[in-house]
Amino acid sequence: MNIVALAGGVGGAKLAHGLAHNLSPAELTIVVNTGDDFEHLGLWIAPDLDTVLYTLAGLANPETGWGQRDETWNCLQALGRLGAPTWFGLGDRDLATHLERTRRRRAGATLTEVTAALCQAWGIGPRVLPMADAPAPTLVETDEGVLAFQEYFVHRRCAPRVQAVRLTAAEPAPAVLAALEAAAAVVICPSNPFLSVDPILNLPGLRERLAGKPVAAVSPIVGGQALKGPAAKLLAELGREVSAVAVAAHYQGLAAGFVLDQVDAALAPAIEALGLRVRVTDTVMRSDADRARLAQETLAFVHSLPAAH
Amino acid sequence: MNIVALAGGVGGAKLAHGLAHNLSPAELTIVVNTGDDFEHLGLWIAPDLDTVLYTLAGLANPETGWGQRDETWNCLQALGRLGAPTWFGLGDRDLATHLERTRRRRAGATLTEVTAALCQAWGIGPRVLPMADAPAPTLVETDEGVLAFQEYFVHRRCAPRVQAVRLTAAEPAPAVLAALEAAAAVVICPSNPFLSVDPILNLPGLRERLAGKPVAAVSPIVGGQALKGPAAKLLAELGREVSAVAVAAHYQGLAAGFVLDQVDAALAPAIEALGLRVRVTDTVMRSDADRARLAQETLAFVHSLPAAH
Repeated sequence: MNIVALAGGVGGAKLAHGLAHNLSPAELTIVVNTGDDFEHLGLWIAPDLDTVLYTLAGLANPETGWGQRDETWNCLQALGRLGAPTWFGLGDRDLATHLERTRRRRAGATLTEVTAALCQAWGIGPRVLPMADAPAPTLVETDEGVLAFQEYFVHRRCAPRVQAVRLTAAEPAPAVLAALEAAAAVVICPSNPFLSVDPILNLPGLRERLAGKPVAAVSPIVGGQALKGPAAKLLAELGREVSAVAVAAHYQGLAAGFVLDQVDAALAPAIEALGLRVRVTDTVMRSDADRARLAQETLAFVHSLPAAH
Repeated sequence: MNIVALAGGVGGAKLAHGLAHNLSPAELTIVVNTGDDFEHLGLWIAPDLDTVLYTLAGLANPETGWGQRDETWNCLQALGRLGAPTWFGLGDRDLATHLERTRRRRAGATLTEVTAALCQAWGIGPRVLPMADAPAPTLVETDEGVLAFQEYFVHRRCAPRVQAVRLTAAEPAPAVLAALEAAAAVVICPSNPFLSVDPILNLPGLRERLAGKPVAAVSPIVGGQALKGPAAKLLAELGREVSAVAVAAHYQGLAAGFVLDQVDAALAPAIEALGLRVRVTDTVMRSDADRARLAQETLAFVHSLPAAH
């Protein structure tokens, strides 16, 4: 039973890790947002991809969610002394990933190929696919102008007020389309719907590939708040209700099922009224066991769902 | 009294440091070999330039002579895990230099401008100039074929037998020509004559700028051995006598004076027979005080010399 998971950064990486615990490597493909990729200091940096890879490899920093564990910061400190921009946190070990990705891409490898090589080097079983091989930068239209994604997200710490998210419709990576065609079901991880999942769904041909598949989305909003990142702030700025209901509404017609946190159990009828089935559980992943259990429940749920239209 | 020093790596950096101790910043310009520069992992790396800069900034690793003190190697270790080449030692702090040099050059700055910015950031007083702004790679013809310089020097640890050194005659950096024109005297540091000094002297217009100036060379060969690097091995492979006399002969007609180590005092008549004046002293720089004293003696000596033809 092939499963495709659509993932952004930290929340997506955690559920992907749980899914990898429940499925054999051949059964799981994780498609990762690359709308937040950017070139920085001459390096191709793919933050969501790295968060997923580091998490699956057991290299992730458990404190921050991004970057590597046991990290040192000597290069960044030295860069600061030279007047280079230091707002993007580049650890010494993490830098190797960016150097090697950049080197391999300059040598002609696709981002899909580079990602496969990283998976092999780190002993990652499931396939991890960038959503696209070509750059597909997400721009954020704010009250302070149009910002590059990492400029908004890291440099400005999501402070500017968002008016709209501008997605780039690059060609999806061929392996992504093939994986979706072969998928028995699709899981949308608890990632930011606008900044992490929409960039994937927006790629030409993507939504069409989901038609006829059971799709379940896991809520990234718990008790009206995002567990990580600006999803709640963004919902408010985009004029939506700041609740899991708004996320379910965002996936209406695409996902047939919605995994809702137990603290939001009272919202289930509103989501069911949108035409989605609801599974209520504890969605907060504090431990590896939490990840595995939530993944297991989500898999059981998605297999019980009807196909989307 | 403007002094220009021509320098390669470790030996040159030490004497340059001693010269900086004896001269005001405005009086000293250090012209550094860039024939050993190379692109590696997508980075512009300038090993001799970095050795000189780190030494003058007080950042140099006193054990190795190259790289930075208190260095860590986490990026290189992580690169190795990804299958990237690790034969060239890139420390985490050192990497910042290469990243920033590469970034600034891609943004349009010349190597001269980048080097000036590094000097400013590190509080280096004297001017440090790359010999050329454009790449001027030195190739080494060996019994195993023609090797790129760092391939020969670091990767192969100077093991292949050298048949000839192939220099690239790039345009000298404009600031180098101007500095030589303004120079009252020139010091050739105790660097490898074939691999570090010849690449500088070989640049079009360089030798002409030395005519009419007093020039003193400090021997890199002491007691028939190089203090660092393959100078002695190279002398033998190129069919020369492995002694300071062969180095003096190499600079005959260019340098009017030769600083000879005290253990080689018996060689003074042979060097004087070549038409060079000789100053015998302790040339081995074990401490900062050694560097300052040797520089002081060399300065007194060069000022006593007649101009070269």
